[in-house]
Amino acid sequence: MSLTRIHNFSISLDGFGTGEPQSADAPFGHAGERLHEWMFRTRYWDPTGSAGLDDAFAQRHSSGIGAEIMGANKFGPPGWQEDQDWKGWWGPNPPFHTPTFVLTHHPRPSIEMEGGTTFHFLDAAPIDALRAAREAADGQDVRIGGGATVIRDFLADGLVDHMHLVQVPIVLGRGVRIWDGLEDVQESYDVEAVSSPSGVTHITFTRRVSS
Amino acid sequence: MSLTRIHNFSISLDGFGTGEPQSADAPFGHAGERLHEWMFRTRYWDPTGSAGLDDAFAQRHSSGIGAEIMGANKFGPPGWQEDQDWKGWWGPNPPFHTPTFVLTHHPRPSIEMEGGTTFHFLDAAPIDALRAAREAADGQDVRIGGGATVIRDFLADGLVDHMHLVQVPIVLGRGVRIWDGLEDVQESYDVEAVSSPSGVTHITFTRRVSS
Repeated sequence: MSLTRIHNFSISLDGFGTGEPQSADAPFGHAGERLHEWMFRTRYWDPTGSAGLDDAFAQRHSSGIGAEIMGANKFGPPGWQEDQDWKGWWGPNPPFHTPTFVLTHHPRPSIEMEGGTTFHFLDAAPIDALRAAREAADGQDVRIGGGATVIRDFLADGLVDHMHLVQVPIVLGRGVRIWDGLEDVQESYDVEAVSSPSGVTHITFTRRVSS
Repeated sequence: MSLTRIHNFSISLDGFGTGEPQSADAPFGHAGERLHEWMFRTRYWDPTGSAGLDDAFAQRHSSGIGAEIMGANKFGPPGWQEDQDWKGWWGPNPPFHTPTFVLTHHPRPSIEMEGGTTFHFLDAAPIDALRAAREAADGQDVRIGGGATVIRDFLADGLVDHMHLVQVPIVLGRGVRIWDGLEDVQESYDVEAVSSPSGVTHITFTRRVSS
């Protein structure tokens, strides 16, 4: 069975998945790298990093994943749709290594990158994007890569099987919130929280299976 | 030194300290008791309850406290100011057992209750209310009892030394948020998070002391 999964998605205490304003110089706006420092200190990111709890969570990001879906705001800064040469933030060999579907109202031809990543551009509802990604994933799982708006949309449509959030102890005050419009979303999930010695708290949502 | 402290203040994953609409029948609106079930299961609340981590946090609520400050929305349902006989939710012997200052734009004469609680009614800014409460506390600490609006106001004015929040794994979606207007409030605090086997996460803010 192919699952829809979210991994390593970091939020502030007040639930923002990014700050503002987002730009080419500041992909996460005034949040800077503060939401992701926990990850940079893990072995998953840095071979000299920690192999503890944060790493155990981070390492699951890619295992068993056959495709990713991301939002337009993850693929590039505001206005990237006007730049026909824009190929994402990640250089010639992006860290996805699978078919990667970018949701945008301005689709363009697919781009094949090094290392197994091919960017496809779709103007589609979550369920239709998921159908395309699942077919491309060839029996493996599909990761919803963010940002916050896309995660919210997939949660609202009941399409997420497994979600791993990382709550960072900062108050951002502004940006894009993950929780808006999701009242009682926890009712379909077993929710578990575990605080790490690093200061972050890992929160997992595991979809309940009806018997 | 007399500290200003917050204890056992429960919030949802999306940062709401209460649901809506608040009424005499539903003091926490659609949140019901869901934000406080963790506390009802502790020995602090119920002699047959758990003596574990949640209880260790809960028990600190009253120790060393000489006065409380609360907002009008904690003292009664919307409109209590019109009812000259309203004496709070808690019956003849309220659980405060100290002078208790109610912030309201409609002050009335003080009410002496059983068990050491005296309600005083103040139309005052946070710092002035704190001055009055500190004098009444006679060298002991002052507790800010909530609700969310009052906690936010005292945090915004830099008046809180110690805050204990309890994050409950539910998404309320609407109500009164604690974090609004508090961008980077964590910069004055050491923040610690610890998840409990019960499912809640205790988050403490301890004000940094300048050397």
